[in-house]
Amino acid sequence: MYQERIRNKKLLDKIMSAEQAAAMIKDGMNIGTSGFTPSGYPKAVPLALAKRVQETGEKLKINLLTGASVGDELDGALARAGVVHKRLPYQTSNEMRKALNDPNGVQYQDQHLSHTPQQVRYGYFGDIDFAIVEACAITEDGHIVPTTSLGNSPTFVKVAKKVIVELNTSQPLELEGMHDVYIPHDPPNREPIPITKAGQRIGTPYIECNPEKIAAIVVTDIPDNVRPLAPLDDESRAMAKNLIGFLKKEVEAGRLPQNLLPLQSGVGSVANAVLAGLLESDFTDLEFYSEVIQDSALDLIDAGKFKVCSGTSLTPSAEGLKRFYANIENYKKTIILRPQEISNNPEVARRLGVISMNTAIEVDIYGHVNSTHIMGTRMMNGIGGSGDFTRNAYLSIFTTASTAKNGEISSIVPMCSHIDHTEHDVNVIVTEIGVADLRNKSPRERALEIINNCAHPDFRPMLLDYYERALKTLGKQAHTPHLLKEALSWHQRFIETGSMKIK
Amino acid sequence: MYQERIRNKKLLDKIMSAEQAAAMIKDGMNIGTSGFTPSGYPKAVPLALAKRVQETGEKLKINLLTGASVGDELDGALARAGVVHKRLPYQTSNEMRKALNDPNGVQYQDQHLSHTPQQVRYGYFGDIDFAIVEACAITEDGHIVPTTSLGNSPTFVKVAKKVIVELNTSQPLELEGMHDVYIPHDPPNREPIPITKAGQRIGTPYIECNPEKIAAIVVTDIPDNVRPLAPLDDESRAMAKNLIGFLKKEVEAGRLPQNLLPLQSGVGSVANAVLAGLLESDFTDLEFYSEVIQDSALDLIDAGKFKVCSGTSLTPSAEGLKRFYANIENYKKTIILRPQEISNNPEVARRLGVISMNTAIEVDIYGHVNSTHIMGTRMMNGIGGSGDFTRNAYLSIFTTASTAKNGEISSIVPMCSHIDHTEHDVNVIVTEIGVADLRNKSPRERALEIINNCAHPDFRPMLLDYYERALKTLGKQAHTPHLLKEALSWHQRFIETGSMKIK
Ligand SMILES: CC(C)(COP(=O)(O)OP(=O)(O)OC[C@H]1O[C@@H](n2cnc3c(N)ncnc32)[C@H](O)[C@@H]1OP(=O)(O)O)[C@@H](O)C(=O)NCCC(=O)NCCS
Ligand SMILES: CC(C)(COP(=O)(O)OP(=O)(O)OC[C@H]1O[C@@H](n2cnc3c(N)ncnc32)[C@H](O)[C@@H]1OP(=O)(O)O)[C@@H](O)C(=O)NCCC(=O)NCCS
Repeated sequence: MYQERIRNKKLLDKIMSAEQAAAMIKDGMNIGTSGFTPSGYPKAVPLALAKRVQETGEKLKINLLTGASVGDELDGALARAGVVHKRLPYQTSNEMRKALNDPNGVQYQDQHLSHTPQQVRYGYFGDIDFAIVEACAITEDGHIVPTTSLGNSPTFVKVAKKVIVELNTSQPLELEGMHDVYIPHDPPNREPIPITKAGQRIGTPYIECNPEKIAAIVVTDIPDNVRPLAPLDDESRAMAKNLIGFLKKEVEAGRLPQNLLPLQSGVGSVANAVLAGLLESDFTDLEFYSEVIQDSALDLIDAGKFKVCSGTSLTPSAEGLKRFYANIENYKKTIILRPQEISNNPEVARRLGVISMNTAIEVDIYGHVNSTHIMGTRMMNGIGGSGDFTRNAYLSIFTTASTAKNGEISSIVPMCSHIDHTEHDVNVIVTEIGVADLRNKSPRERALEIINNCAHPDFRPMLLDYYERALKTLGKQAHTPHLLKEALSWHQRFIETGSMKIK
Repeated sequence: MYQERIRNKKLLDKIMSAEQAAAMIKDGMNIGTSGFTPSGYPKAVPLALAKRVQETGEKLKINLLTGASVGDELDGALARAGVVHKRLPYQTSNEMRKALNDPNGVQYQDQHLSHTPQQVRYGYFGDIDFAIVEACAITEDGHIVPTTSLGNSPTFVKVAKKVIVELNTSQPLELEGMHDVYIPHDPPNREPIPITKAGQRIGTPYIECNPEKIAAIVVTDIPDNVRPLAPLDDESRAMAKNLIGFLKKEVEAGRLPQNLLPLQSGVGSVANAVLAGLLESDFTDLEFYSEVIQDSALDLIDAGKFKVCSGTSLTPSAEGLKRFYANIENYKKTIILRPQEISNNPEVARRLGVISMNTAIEVDIYGHVNSTHIMGTRMMNGIGGSGDFTRNAYLSIFTTASTAKNGEISSIVPMCSHIDHTEHDVNVIVTEIGVADLRNKSPRERALEIINNCAHPDFRPMLLDYYERALKTLGKQAHTPHLLKEALSWHQRFIETGSMKIK
């Protein structure tokens, strides 16, 4: 029964219903919750809060801070109930996306995931009224044993006035020991983060919590609402093949060790295809220092190719979650779940020399990357951890299909309609067409490398034409040749005609 | 005489003329030189090389890597002689600027200053054929005692096939001991950088060098060709007043200690005005963890307000240099010169929690910053260290006059014509008009804060009109409202009419 999961017996009297706990949440409060991708986020209390507000028509707006994206029981339910005023630092929910792109809807802040926790502690968002954190157990001293993600839970528990624990019995007790919780001191007393190897543990297996702070314990068995595996399509496989081929050449050139350097890769089909490609490659003794641990990472662990798998959340498919639950003791030897402030920490990413592999929405001919906005105005998800890793990587790689919307959009454009990663941070672009190595190249040299190696043939002549006319028009005034009248015209043409092509 | 400056007597036989040393430099070579701002850069050898090529008409193109900007005897002379093919990572020379904006001229790479040294060691630019480094002395073991900057000299000496030392007798021997040379190991063997206080020393007072590597010692007395002090005008003073007022409020709100946190600020009139403002303020026990140490920093040291002054180069005016030379023993108690890989290191900047203060060319209504390109195409100087500090700061501040070109240009624009710092990195904008605090605000909230607090009254109505029409046009599709047809129209109008104003 769940009682054994609460080892501090005094806390048994905090057990209450989700409705009772939700009643503590008032208008205007800052709420920090566990959750990173739809793993380890609270379910029962947000559902109860949304239900209450929808039924009573009560006027209630909260500011919701999370680790990153969460499940529908939190982002979806609260967005549908219209109770979210501010939302940060990242999300991938259809309802929340609709709400935050609505000027009268949610005010959303897209943040580097390693910035949010320290800025919470610096007081940049005001006090955190409640931390709502999923746990699989509570220790004798009242500390919280997390579940399938860590995200920003440790900082929220540390600074929140009160804590609501969702004790989730669908999360197996064997998860205990997989976590490594470490919160840096803040300036001027911060110390070096003592990680020099991807697999190093530096913290505690639980989130420290003063039992008096626990205002409620809500027992639930609602499982992580995980997402189906992104399909492995030919384009993703071609990108993976190009990317792995590039890494092999770097090894042959002596610029990378035989077993590479710690790898970081995001969610999505390309990330899965790359890890699947590594499974078939002859690379061994690989290390993973990333954010999200997907099914493909479990495959590499099972095959003995991943020596270490460090992240801040498990992001499995339904089958992946079953497979993980059935084998936790084994996976615990390889998998470490860290707070996102540590999994995404610039100090550690630069020290370990990670190879970053993330997906772009669009890339421009000079190597700037847009990870977040469609047509420069509509937010898709957010920058996530792509900036934390890209800026500090030994080698930073972005992948994108050369076209979108079945060929009507070129992902290689004259000028990005929104920029998340600048020319200073982007080393390599990979599409299904080929690889552009931007290192040791000026903007004018990059333009030809990107257009000729990565752009889709349908759009290559238009890109070359833009570049050459810009060069000619600007004469001796152009480190970065652009025709400002035309730079965003491709996007405007798509908005007006449904295609970037000139019919 | 200069001989006592060469304590390894075997090296005396390496002394040769600048012409003889320059003769070693061949077509296609990668040359890494000392120098950061016009301080501590080689003079005699580059002048000899330029002279030879201009006289013989010899076909010679080299790739020039430095710490950052250098003096005219290097960037200016080589650009005038047309001998530079690739140039990185930063420059401020009129001739070099002309050459790199010319499509048939120099191929320039604008890099984060903390990225260049490690990427040199990673082999991303090929081998370094010669390091040319200014020294004030050479130790018994053949190690190099640097002069008024450190920049990338340690890495260039470490990786170069051969080293040419310019022993500069205009640089006083008392400089010895001011430097703290530390080169991190590279992945996978890198350790934490053991700096937890701005004033901590972790390295050696000299650049380690195997004497056999020294191919030539050229003796010269050409002084650092320093630049006059940027004038303190009313706009800079108003910006400084607004900025310091903002810092005071952060202290009162308890978000900053009484003596702030280590400060970083760039070159230029605003930086000088801010430090001058701090001199008059009641802030004490201040620490400086920056790149360039200007006259205004010397004033704060003299006044006992700067406890520590860490950077990678002295950047004094002519009077400032005289004053420094006359008082080195005293200044050595406070000033530390580090390699730029350490002065600009993300790990250290984030750990110390620096307050970054840099100047923007333009800022858009959503808080993106352009530090480098005029009208999106013409390179001014480069990003320098502004990215290293801004991304990792406890608090990141950008200053800019609200207008340029005597009021015809608004520095607050609908969309930046080039982006160096994204919304995720920029916390505060300061103009002579006021302060925009972008923390805890969505893009739509930032737009009103920036337009109303920072834009010049001449342009405020136009900016509000753009924002409101974008909001209306895009309806429920706009986390970041833009009208792509108009976003860069202000720049186009200036190009066509000489003004951003609608006449
Ligand atoms: C960029 C990102 C949205 C791509 O997601 P993905 O699932 O791999 O790629 P998809 O091809 O499915 O594209 C996602 C959506 O963007 C659209 N899209 C992709 N490229 C586009 C382009 N060039 N122009 C317009 N729309 C585009 C797709 O049509 C799709 O829209 P839909 O969902 O409405 O059909 C995603 O990787 C992301 O959010 N990245 C930022 C966060 C990050 O990198 N985190 C670090 C590690 S987790
Ligand atoms: C941004 C930067 C160029 C401003 O320099 P500054 O001397 O403080 O400012 P100025 O007002 O003198 O502007 C410099 C030039 O840019 C032009 N300029 C400034 N704002 C402009 C704008 N909004 N649009 C067009 N031109 C503009 C000025 O007219 C001037 O041009 P000129 O030299 O041809 O007359 C300079 O700070 C820089 O290079 N920064 C990037 C590097 C950095 O931040 N390093 C970190 C610390 S050193």
